[in-house]
Amino acid sequence: MAAYYLSKDKQVELSKIAQSIATPGKGILAADEPAGIIESRFAPMNIENNEENRRYYRQLLFRTKESRQHISGIILCHETFYHKTDDDDTSFPRLLTAAGIIPGITVDRGLIVLGGTDNETITQGLDGLEERCREYKKNGAQFAKWRAALKIDKNCPSQLAINENASKLARYASICQQCGLVPIVEPEVSLDGDHDLEECQRVTENVLATVYKALNDHHVYLEGTLLKPNIVTPGKDCPKTYSVEQIAEATVIAFRRTVPTAVPGIMFLSGGHNEENSTAYLNAINRVNLYKPWTLSFSYGRALQTSVLRAWKGDKNNSEQARNEFIRLARQNGLASLGRYELSN
Amino acid sequence: MAAYYLSKDKQVELSKIAQSIATPGKGILAADEPAGIIESRFAPMNIENNEENRRYYRQLLFRTKESRQHISGIILCHETFYHKTDDDDTSFPRLLTAAGIIPGITVDRGLIVLGGTDNETITQGLDGLEERCREYKKNGAQFAKWRAALKIDKNCPSQLAINENASKLARYASICQQCGLVPIVEPEVSLDGDHDLEECQRVTENVLATVYKALNDHHVYLEGTLLKPNIVTPGKDCPKTYSVEQIAEATVIAFRRTVPTAVPGIMFLSGGHNEENSTAYLNAINRVNLYKPWTLSFSYGRALQTSVLRAWKGDKNNSEQARNEFIRLARQNGLASLGRYELSN
Amino acid sequence: MAAYYLSKDKQVELSKIAQSIATPGKGILAADEPAGIIESRFAPMNIENNEENRRYYRQLLFRTKESRQHISGIILCHETFYHKTDDDDTSFPRLLTAAGIIPGITVDRGLIVLGGTDNETITQGLDGLEERCREYKKNGAQFAKWRAALKIDKNCPSQLAINENASKLARYASICQQCGLVPIVEPEVSLDGDHDLEECQRVTENVLATVYKALNDHHVYLEGTLLKPNIVTPGKDCPKTYSVEQIAEATVIAFRRTVPTAVPGIMFLSGGHNEENSTAYLNAINRVNLYKPWTLSFSYGRALQTSVLRAWKGDKNNSEQARNEFIRLARQNGLASLGRYELSN
Amino acid sequence: MAAYYLSKDKQVELSKIAQSIATPGKGILAADEPAGIIESRFAPMNIENNEENRRYYRQLLFRTKESRQHISGIILCHETFYHKTDDDDTSFPRLLTAAGIIPGITVDRGLIVLGGTDNETITQGLDGLEERCREYKKNGAQFAKWRAALKIDKNCPSQLAINENASKLARYASICQQCGLVPIVEPEVSLDGDHDLEECQRVTENVLATVYKALNDHHVYLEGTLLKPNIVTPGKDCPKTYSVEQIAEATVIAFRRTVPTAVPGIMFLSGGHNEENSTAYLNAINRVNLYKPWTLSFSYGRALQTSVLRAWKGDKNNSEQARNEFIRLARQNGLASLGRYELSN
Repeated sequence: MAAYYLSKDKQVELSKIAQSIATPGKGILAADEPAGIIESRFAPMNIENNEENRRYYRQLLFRTKESRQHISGIILCHETFYHKTDDDDTSFPRLLTAAGIIPGITVDRGLIVLGGTDNETITQGLDGLEERCREYKKNGAQFAKWRAALKIDKNCPSQLAINENASKLARYASICQQCGLVPIVEPEVSLDGDHDLEECQRVTENVLATVYKALNDHHVYLEGTLLKPNIVTPGKDCPKTYSVEQIAEATVIAFRRTVPTAVPGIMFLSGGHNEENSTAYLNAINRVNLYKPWTLSFSYGRALQTSVLRAWKGDKNNSEQARNEFIRLARQNGLASLGRYELSN
Repeated sequence: MAAYYLSKDKQVELSKIAQSIATPGKGILAADEPAGIIESRFAPMNIENNEENRRYYRQLLFRTKESRQHISGIILCHETFYHKTDDDDTSFPRLLTAAGIIPGITVDRGLIVLGGTDNETITQGLDGLEERCREYKKNGAQFAKWRAALKIDKNCPSQLAINENASKLARYASICQQCGLVPIVEPEVSLDGDHDLEECQRVTENVLATVYKALNDHHVYLEGTLLKPNIVTPGKDCPKTYSVEQIAEATVIAFRRTVPTAVPGIMFLSGGHNEENSTAYLNAINRVNLYKPWTLSFSYGRALQTSVLRAWKGDKNNSEQARNEFIRLARQNGLASLGRYELSN
Repeated sequence: MAAYYLSKDKQVELSKIAQSIATPGKGILAADEPAGIIESRFAPMNIENNEENRRYYRQLLFRTKESRQHISGIILCHETFYHKTDDDDTSFPRLLTAAGIIPGITVDRGLIVLGGTDNETITQGLDGLEERCREYKKNGAQFAKWRAALKIDKNCPSQLAINENASKLARYASICQQCGLVPIVEPEVSLDGDHDLEECQRVTENVLATVYKALNDHHVYLEGTLLKPNIVTPGKDCPKTYSVEQIAEATVIAFRRTVPTAVPGIMFLSGGHNEENSTAYLNAINRVNLYKPWTLSFSYGRALQTSVLRAWKGDKNNSEQARNEFIRLARQNGLASLGRYELSN
Repeated sequence: MAAYYLSKDKQVELSKIAQSIATPGKGILAADEPAGIIESRFAPMNIENNEENRRYYRQLLFRTKESRQHISGIILCHETFYHKTDDDDTSFPRLLTAAGIIPGITVDRGLIVLGGTDNETITQGLDGLEERCREYKKNGAQFAKWRAALKIDKNCPSQLAINENASKLARYASICQQCGLVPIVEPEVSLDGDHDLEECQRVTENVLATVYKALNDHHVYLEGTLLKPNIVTPGKDCPKTYSVEQIAEATVIAFRRTVPTAVPGIMFLSGGHNEENSTAYLNAINRVNLYKPWTLSFSYGRALQTSVLRAWKGDKNNSEQARNEFIRLARQNGLASLGRYELSN
């Protein structure tokens, strides 16, 4: 039986990477927006969405030295992964590695409708994944990301959607680990809907329980994984309001019930929350007075970039201001991941 | 709930195709060997494996008029699907359709190792499958094929391998049906091993039960599917011997326990059996004195081609002899699918 | 692996019993109402519900000779199983056996709420079941019955209720077979609710697919089982109306998609339908123009007894009329199980 | 959906009980041997196995005041639960409660063979469990115990045995919680066999992952449960030897991968290990240098009683010595549950 488990060496390698990413006080910058999505970020600021602008913008972020004490890893998309710096022609993964930041790569190929469901989705990308992972690893990636999405609605999420998405996440995680990449497991329960906090908590617990059962079925080495879940909140159209503390407590309880201790870190996604809320929730989560055996930190995209883009405006002359915004957000979330963020910070 | 089931129109369309393929007395020619596999068929006959030889050879088969009363459908690989006749530039799918034969297409992308198992396999090919299916349908395909492979060994098949392969077959079937293609569901239990007949029967029953549960989970419309299973036989290294009748009975019992009546046809794969045995087993299966509510026929590759290639030898001058061999094999298996084959035929 | 399958001898024994019960043109009388339920049948006719009345009434039914050509088996409750005839002190199971009717016994212990669901139910009775089955078998029982109940409602049936009930049915079936009793597997989808015909069909298909997967998981020998399902109908409060033919077709389609051919007979329960409808549905089901590889017959309680009780009124002087009613109902349903019932019969 | 979750009040009540039992430095005395088993404990010491001896012996244990700082709960069997003290006619549950010890009750009804497996077992006792639990609760029980047993062998544990045992444990837990009893979930992987440490760890992880998935499926409130698992050790006939530290590390790793943080305590069973080893393993487990978010303590039967019985010998004159032995063992294991036991203690 032993043959189909990871070797001890691989376990040690993966475990080290995962622990580094989950260093207390640090989190992940999700800079893996594909060209289509970055469009929606650039457009409101009147930034032209061309490859050089995308490259330049990411370089700006990656070279912001003062952010590095709060950022342990950065997720790249395929295009960015093969971009290089404009002065010394260093590939971005090498740039990050040299800066003490661990480079990661999005390996899923997006969502499609899952037949037999009420327009629920399943994630594509397993075909040829092993070859791609080996190539990314060779070029400096140390971790990978795969996003599954579940929605709360009348008949949703269906058992079929939960099971299929969990099974694909597990298969992805298994392939990544064989290639030396730490899989970030992202089963996002969407913010859309008018469900209340309790409903989100129940669904999140059910989804996570299914995901961890699937990871066990596939003999995935949990110490060499990270979780990237949604924060447990009411749907964005929920008529009821909840305090930040209630949201934080529901979140911590849900994870205490489902996520094994062996997982080094839970890196929350912002998932539609704005910068202020994302930071406030993370901070409150870390202050909940319950045993939390994991690093509880961030893997934010928009919540680390909105103010940066607003400052930059696609103009190199604004780079300094943009960098300052990034430093501010990284610092605030770094503090929040320790429960030490104060509004006055 | 209704929305995520197939429309009545699509059900009718798929059901008609499936029933045509399962016309009593007819079966499927599996001519979907990819270039790599056809090499192993051509080589022993000293036939050069180039694209024109592959095209010419398939054209030879497809134009054998007298075979058509025994062949209801032919499975093509991607290359052959886009080949054309050498005289009137008709695409092969159109050639077949005009000849009253239903063209099908292999859509899986082969087997890879399934991590967390003792070198068991999983089938690739779900990424972008819907787009490919729509394209094939537009160009004349009416059905599709996806092969999953399970092996019998000390710890195999594992529950993980059975579940994962069943789930992928179901997902493939769901996508095909949405695109108007009848999915041929092929969960092959390999002939390799020294297991006895009973063990093969148990594993086959377990695999099929899991596959049909998965098809139900995905709301696949069974009337618009076909099954392509292994014949239930002892492993090829099994020290015990069994009569053709014992093998036929074990096969029929296994399918009576697992395959719903709604499935129009069970088209056996030859799976390593030679021409003689493949025909004899099929014939005996149809003679088993038990209620068998499906067409029980063939979807043979090698078992319909070995003698043909031996006669052809890659030489156009031998085309007539090759065609005669194909007519003979098609006729014998057509009779066997009615239980009317006699050795003297 | 072989050790934990039934012996060939036991398979043959069980298969013979199941086939006898499923003799074409015959069905089952469900006379297993416990004392509490019989109360609700006796009360409207002003019949006192005491043990002797219960015994006398069942004796009346069991001794109706002319019913025997339409009744292959009778299900008894525990009390009736140990009752005896009043003249020659013959136990009821012996009386039935001598009359060519196969005696069966209800072995479940009723429904309780299944925690963690919206008041769905689970069936009790597994504790000590093997001992009880051995005792019943020794005293003449040849088959057993276990009823699971599912309901259709906003969140029902839940996956949990479906899975748990299927698993208990399978475990019950496994125990029965080890003791030489043919298990009648009864997963009733309730008539309560306002759901339409399509919804009932989908739920029934889902439930049956899960039940047969569970039976396979437990290695239950299907040839030695019978199914007692609901007829697929709209909920009793459904605003839409459907023809008998539509109901019959939906029923046949549902079973063709889920029930293996190896199962000898499907013996429908009346489940709240009155005598007329129960007979009409059964008749129409047998006339549906689709392949139906099982005996499709009845296992009716109320639908074989309402008129009988109305005629009897608890008065021995009415025994003749009561018997005539029973003969009439048995004959009508016997004909319906062959699709030969005409309203004028 | 909310209706079928436990009320907040019940959650608080259960959570308090579970946390009390899992008080750091304390553990459970499993004094629930039924009369049949106690026979095997009494016999070697020439103690007559009659009800009064059983009652007297348990009274001796329960009245040992100095043990109470190390014993938080005691599990009773049905007979003992209704026994009373011989001087003041106090029921044992009341005696314990007054002494600050939480009384528990075994509610399962033992193991039987699970059909369709290679002599694996399933636990009985669900029939009428709710009524029994309410009765026990009324009479002072605060927690319950249910033991499932899995064995490691060529084809064992089978997926069927794992799934069925997990599902029954979950159902038991659900019923207990509705009645106000904290369920102790005991999925024991047996010491029998020659498997090595790694194999035991893999099986234990697989079993626990399945159990916690089942508990989630049944919406069991984890904060109001306790786990009673085996220590991860090689089979008793394993030719390889392992250090206490290796065993402790494998144990901690297995639980870190499968047991949610929400579970307050893991109370190991001795499961065939002798007094010395049971204490040594527990001590080493608590010293493993990994994050362990639960109380890791004991729920020992034989490992807390062998020396006591040897001292007592069924003779009231030896009661003092017996009590001293019990104090010694309770103290040693109390220390071990804090990782503070030294051989010299």
